Order: sequence, then structure tokens, then C-alpha cells
Amino acid sequence: MSHPGATATDRHKVVIIGSGFGGLNTAQKLKRADVDVKLIARTTHHLFQPLLYQVATGIISEGEIAPPTRLILRKQHNAQVLLGDVTHVDLANKTVTSELLGHDYVTPYDSLVIAAGAGQSYFGNDHFAEFAPGMKSIDDALELRGRILGAFEQAERSSDPERRKKLLTFVVVGAGPTGVEMAGQIQELADQTLKGSFRHIDPTEAHVILLDAAPAVLPPMGKKLGLKAQARLEKMGVEVQLNAMVTDVDRNGITVKDADGTIRRIEAACKVWSAGVQASPLGRDLAEQSETEIDRAGRVKVLPDLSIPGHPNVFVIGDMAYVEGVPGMAQGAIQGAKYVSKIIQNEAKAREHGTIPKPREPFSYFDKGSMATVSKYNAVAQVGKLEFGGFIAWLAWLGLHLIYLVGFKTKVATLLSWAVTFLSRERGQLTITEQQAYARTRIEQLEDMAASLRETEKAAS
Amino acid sequence: MSHPGATATDRHKVVIIGSGFGGLNTAQKLKRADVDVKLIARTTHHLFQPLLYQVATGIISEGEIAPPTRLILRKQHNAQVLLGDVTHVDLANKTVTSELLGHDYVTPYDSLVIAAGAGQSYFGNDHFAEFAPGMKSIDDALELRGRILGAFEQAERSSDPERRKKLLTFVVVGAGPTGVEMAGQIQELADQTLKGSFRHIDPTEAHVILLDAAPAVLPPMGKKLGLKAQARLEKMGVEVQLNAMVTDVDRNGITVKDADGTIRRIEAACKVWSAGVQASPLGRDLAEQSETEIDRAGRVKVLPDLSIPGHPNVFVIGDMAYVEGVPGMAQGAIQGAKYVSKIIQNEAKAREHGTIPKPREPFSYFDKGSMATVSKYNAVAQVGKLEFGGFIAWLAWLGLHLIYLVGFKTKVATLLSWAVTFLSRERGQLTITEQQAYARTRIEQLEDMAASLRETEKAAS
Repeated sequence: MSHPGATATDRHKVVIIGSGFGGLNTAQKLKRADVDVKLIARTTHHLFQPLLYQVATGIISEGEIAPPTRLILRKQHNAQVLLGDVTHVDLANKTVTSELLGHDYVTPYDSLVIAAGAGQSYFGNDHFAEFAPGMKSIDDALELRGRILGAFEQAERSSDPERRKKLLTFVVVGAGPTGVEMAGQIQELADQTLKGSFRHIDPTEAHVILLDAAPAVLPPMGKKLGLKAQARLEKMGVEVQLNAMVTDVDRNGITVKDADGTIRRIEAACKVWSAGVQASPLGRDLAEQSETEIDRAGRVKVLPDLSIPGHPNVFVIGDMAYVEGVPGMAQGAIQGAKYVSKIIQNEAKAREHGTIPKPREPFSYFDKGSMATVSKYNAVAQVGKLEFGGFIAWLAWLGLHLIYLVGFKTKVATLLSWAVTFLSRERGQLTITEQQAYARTRIEQLEDMAASLRETEKAAS
Repeated sequence: MSHPGATATDRHKVVIIGSGFGGLNTAQKLKRADVDVKLIARTTHHLFQPLLYQVATGIISEGEIAPPTRLILRKQHNAQVLLGDVTHVDLANKTVTSELLGHDYVTPYDSLVIAAGAGQSYFGNDHFAEFAPGMKSIDDALELRGRILGAFEQAERSSDPERRKKLLTFVVVGAGPTGVEMAGQIQELADQTLKGSFRHIDPTEAHVILLDAAPAVLPPMGKKLGLKAQARLEKMGVEVQLNAMVTDVDRNGITVKDADGTIRRIEAACKVWSAGVQASPLGRDLAEQSETEIDRAGRVKVLPDLSIPGHPNVFVIGDMAYVEGVPGMAQGAIQGAKYVSKIIQNEAKAREHGTIPKPREPFSYFDKGSMATVSKYNAVAQVGKLEFGGFIAWLAWLGLHLIYLVGFKTKVATLLSWAVTFLSRERGQLTITEQQAYARTRIEQLEDMAASLRETEKAAS
């Protein structure tokens, strides 16, 4: 067995939690540092989350936005990638515990960078998740692909007009970038790709509803762009419902409370949740052992150098960190990664030369702007004071996303997938699996069985 | 709602079961026939099964070999595609019953073409399936992709040499084309793509075993080509074990009985089953209602015109049919489809003109040959009396598979994926989901829980 990198046990040990933008970029920026890097993550891939909605709606394959992290870091010999779900950080003993299929592993660190991201938040209603999956992982995207296309298939076989209407109603909760992009893409999938391929239903009659409790679409992008995006969505046929709060979600639909207090019901088989985020539970774990504070969304209130109180060697970056003025987007994570890796590298150098490291400058975020695609050829973008929409914004979106995708071959593959979808009305990735359906059914059966056996047992004792 | 095609209820009704090579080709060949075509299938896609092993080993995406059947048939207005699992054919009443998510649908037919294919056969040991998935569906391929790559990930984290060895041993049962291709690709994945990306294991030390109860590799291709393929596999590092019969499969490995009666054990976490096929249970359904006979593999012994005794309007084609001299391969299904659609079209025309249709000529199979890839740049091929191997055979394999892939854009995408893998050592589709791992773990937990509760219950009564 070869153990390159695993031999240098006396080197400064950097442990990174997470393989998203924050984690991967921290590892990469430490390429030339004289440290030992261990990146521990729950998935084997680096997910390019901004394009997840394109996996869900059949434009690109999961491989294009989720290459294996270890292959990205293959040639970086001071780095190793370990699969595992980090369940605990022990600040006193400076170790991280991760779990893989029932085995627990304890990994010591000198410096720790926590970039475990955020999951979907259902604001205390976790039972919504079963009926309205989020948009945070490859699993979510493939599950939603199956549900969206499956709804059309079921409608085609149904002769009950009520049931058919329910199956052809799609509700996207949350009008942030992901929600806007999902709503637009479900509508385009129905109107363009699926058009003419059914005989008993007309897929263009699908009813897509984008819903938010807030009074605007894309609130962080400002009123002007929000209205622009909303107008474009409405022109495409998406119904935008604002000031509408979701009070319940079940198998058959959702219940909504409007601003005037009216409670109403939308019957819809397929729901997508993109309304809120909840940071990784590791934030709470830190708060229990230190002076660290977390906000309502579970985000860690970091110090100006992105470390936590009393532990200058423990950093939190990306969606898990709360920093005034830094949005929970890729740019925040990437810049945080750059900043902390610089500190780690400088301090490693100082130790090596026996000098005193330069005092840490506080982290400052440079806002490169933000953008969201609404439909084919149409996006909205904001760069500093500049706000623009339409085709130019869409071209900018296209170029920027291509630049940020990891790997030349991925860029070519994605460009080809986009050519297929944007120049024609086709989509190359509409395959759905039986797996989800089967696994879910089996879990439900077994849970019922276990429950009934537990009842019998109780009755017997 | 638009109902094109659904209005002509007085036309001759052709029902096709299955969306594989047989089913899809039958529908397509009836394009110009004055009949009403309903294709009912269990999956929404047409699967190009010969390339399934490339999905399992991360070369291509599922979208490239499994486009939605209804999009392929979109412009064929006399055809409709219905999702459903056909559970029963009623020969007396001329109807087909299909099930979709708990709903049963009854569809009448005038002519019926059954092309429901074959599943994996475990020769009466269906409990092997859990530990050694087959290679018959997109779900199988994605499950195996997760198991293969997951085994390397677990080995990287394990410090127990025994466990590590078990995790890095891969057993492929069945040395037909699929088995040969899987074994070769797992070896190339380890030796080329994954090489250098781990720090605690050397993936090139993975041990791939191809095992068969028969005395030869690729038996239907003849001794010469079998030996050629075997030599090439062995040169790559695959261990070929012949005359070895599997007697048991469990979570940790397999038990094998050699020709001399020796029973031995191979510890291996990841097993692939490609040893035998079992035709769709619909064959038995037909046998129970008619003079139809089925063979041991459940295949229907059809008449010379591919119909069943007493029912000249019911045809069975493809892997479900037993016809002397016709192998269970794509070509058999495609030629069967061409033949039966011609009969249906001729007889429809005769009815229309009030004439007597020409008597049916018996089906005759034209053997176009067969081929299997062993590794990058290496294949074996047999066309008539001509047998050849190596690079030329591989080029022929490449060209033929590209020609048979459905759709121009799919061909371009697949060619690009192949360029990535064959010209470099990369693979573009190595993403694995958490779904399988999670669902399986949960199923196992619940099954254990249910079993222990059942024990308690027994003890109490």
C-alpha cells in the first residue's frame, strides 16, 4: 500500500468539514502550504449547487455538477479526502468525530475549518419535507425530477378531472433564486419539452405557482429586478402569489394564509420547498462547548477573523457562518475560504521560521453581485449599482456559470447539454429511476409492520 | 384538453407491452399503418441495455441510454405511451390489465405484441439479489455505481487489513458479454480513473474476479474468441475463474463449488450478478389460459409466426420468446418487431380493402453477428464465419453502438463522454447518491427491529 501524504504526521494538521464551495476552496488554496489537509464530507462529490435546478428539470446530468471531490484533489499531495458524516467537534481535545456506515472515526486537528453548509428549513414543520422536498442535494434534485415527470405520467392515465388537475398543479414555495429558477424551468419543461408528447392531457396546461410569504420576488436583488423577474415569470404563465404564508403541506396539496387572513387550499401533487435554510447542527455543537453564539437559522456568529470566541484555530465559513453583509451564496463561501487559508498558511510559515505571524486583518467581503435565470434567454443580474435583465443578463449568467464549473471536460459537456436545451426544446436528462418509489414504499411497509408488532407486544405485556 | 389519436376508437387497436428494443421498434414500424397503437411499459424510458455497464462504471449518464419513450414517439400521432406495470393479459376478453401506483387500468386490444423482456435469474435463489444486484435496469446500474465507488471509499477509511481486502475484492458472476464488460470496466476504473486519488489504499490493488459455472468465457461466441477475451482480461489483471458454481451469496462474500467438488469462500463486499435471465412472468400468465408452453427460463415457445397457439393476434417477441436459433439480444427483438408489425399492417390493409391477407411467412432470423468490449481499445466480434478481436473490433463496436443509439443529440453526447474516458483516463459520471445507502440502511434497521419484535411476541405467547 502507498501512503503518500499520510506519513507526515508531524506537520500542522488542518481538518476541513464539508466539500462545498467553502471546504473545497479552502483545501485548494492550501495547496502550497506546509500543512496536512484532511477534508471530511458527507458526500463523495463537490456539488455545484447553483445548477441543481437544471438536474431536477432534466437539462443536465448529476455528473456535470457533482464530480468526486477526491478526483478534483487527486494531484494535491498534501490533501486527503475522507467520506464521513461529522457528528461532533471536541474543542477541548481538538478532534472531530465522523461516522461512516456505523463506524466512528476520530480525527485530530490543529486548525479546523467548518464549512458544513445549510440544509432546507421548514421552520419547525419538518413533516412537510416528505411532501415538499427541498433543493439542496443531488438526491433532492433526482427525487424532484421523478416527482415532476411522474405527475405528468399519472395525469395521462387518469380520467378523473379533479385528480388530473391536482397532478398538473406544481407549487414552488419560496421566491428566491432557486424558487424562481425551478418555477421557470417546470413551466418551460411543460410548454416546450413535453408539448405534444401526451395524448390525453395537454402538458402546456400545467399550472405552476410560485409562492412566498414575502411581498416580493427575489427580495435581496431589489424591487426593480424583482418586478422584472416577476413580470417575465407571469408572461411565461407562472402564477406568482406573494404575501402568502404556507400553514400546512400534505400529500394532496398545501394550505395557505393570505395577508388578509384568508385561509385557502391549493390541491397539488408536486410541491418544491425552497423557502428557507437551516445551518448545519454543528453550530449548536460549538455553542454548547464555547462562548459561540448562533442565530435563529443556526448560523454561527463568527468573530471578524471568521474564528469562534476562545478558539482562534477554529473557523466557520460559508452558509454556516453569520457575517453582517455577507449573503449565503457561493461567493461568500469562496472568499471566506481564501481568507482563512491565507491565515492558516501565514501562521504555518511563521511557525516554521520561528517568527511571530502578522496580526489577522478582519475578513472583508467584496460583493461581485448576483444573478438568477428566469427562463431561456432571460435572466436578471445586479453588479454593484448596476441592475439589468433580459438576454444580456442571461449571457452573463451563462458565461459566469461556465467559468465556475470545475474542470474543462465538465464545461464542454455542460455547454453541449445547454446547446441541446436552449437551441432546441429538448432535454437530454429526463430519465427517472424506480429506486425512490421502491425504497419509500418498503420503508413505509416496514414502519407499519414494526408499529403493529409494537402494539401486539404492548397488548401482550 | 387535446386528444389527438384518442378519438379514433373504431380503428384496429394494437397494444404493445414493453418499451425495450422489441416494443419500441414495433410501435415505430407501425407509423404508417391505419391502426391505433398503445405502448404500455413499466418505465418511462427506452433502455439501451448494451451500454448499461457504462452507466454503472461512470462513463455515461443514464440520460444518454434511457430517453423517455414518449418523446421518441412524440410525432407518431397514431401511437400513445402509457406508464404501467402489466399484471395480466385476458386472452378471452382481449384486454390487458396494467397497474400504476395502486390504480388498475384495463385496455382492450385487437392485436397484442408482448415484448416485456427478461429480468435477472438467480436460479431459485432470489435472496442473492440483495447482495449481488443484476444488470437489467437503470436502477441496477446506479445502485452498482454506488456500491463499487462506495467500497473504495470505505476501504480508504478502514485500518483493518481483512476488511480492506474484502472491500477491494469485486466479484462478477457470469462471463457473458455483460459480465466481461463489467469486469473489464471495474478494473479500468480502479487502475486508471481512481489511480492516485486515495491516500491510504492503492485502488490499483483492487482484485476483480470474473466467475462462471461454464468452462469458457463468452460461450456463444465460440472457443477462439472466448480465449481471446479471457487472455485480454487476464492481462488487465482480472482473475477469471471457470467451472466455478456459486452456491451461496451473502453480505460479506460468496461461496463457490469448483468442478472437483471443492467448496471455497471468496470474501467480497461488492458482487455483480449477470449469470442468467428469467423471462417476464406474463409468459406463465399466457400458459395458464392457452395451449402456450414456456421453457425453464419462462420464455414463451412461439409458433413460426411468433404468435401463440390459438391466438393468431397475440405475438411474443424479444427476450420473452423462445425461437430456435435466435439469441436473446437486441437484434432478435428488433427483427421480431419488424416481422410482427409487417403482419399487423398487412392484415389491417386487407381488412380495409375487404381482401384476404397474404398467408403469413414464418419468421426467419438474420444473424448479424455479435460483439463485446473487453477494455479500452479492445473488443471481440463475430460476423458470420468471420471472427476478430483487438482494436478493429473495438472500432466496429464503437461505430455500431453509436448508430443504434436513439437520437442525434444522444449520439453527440455519448461520443463526447467516450472521448473523455477513452482519450484520457477520466470518467464524467461518477456521482453517487445518498438515497440508496440511506434507504438500504433504514430497511435493514427496520427489518432487524421487526424480526426482534416478532421474537418477543413468540416468547410472550
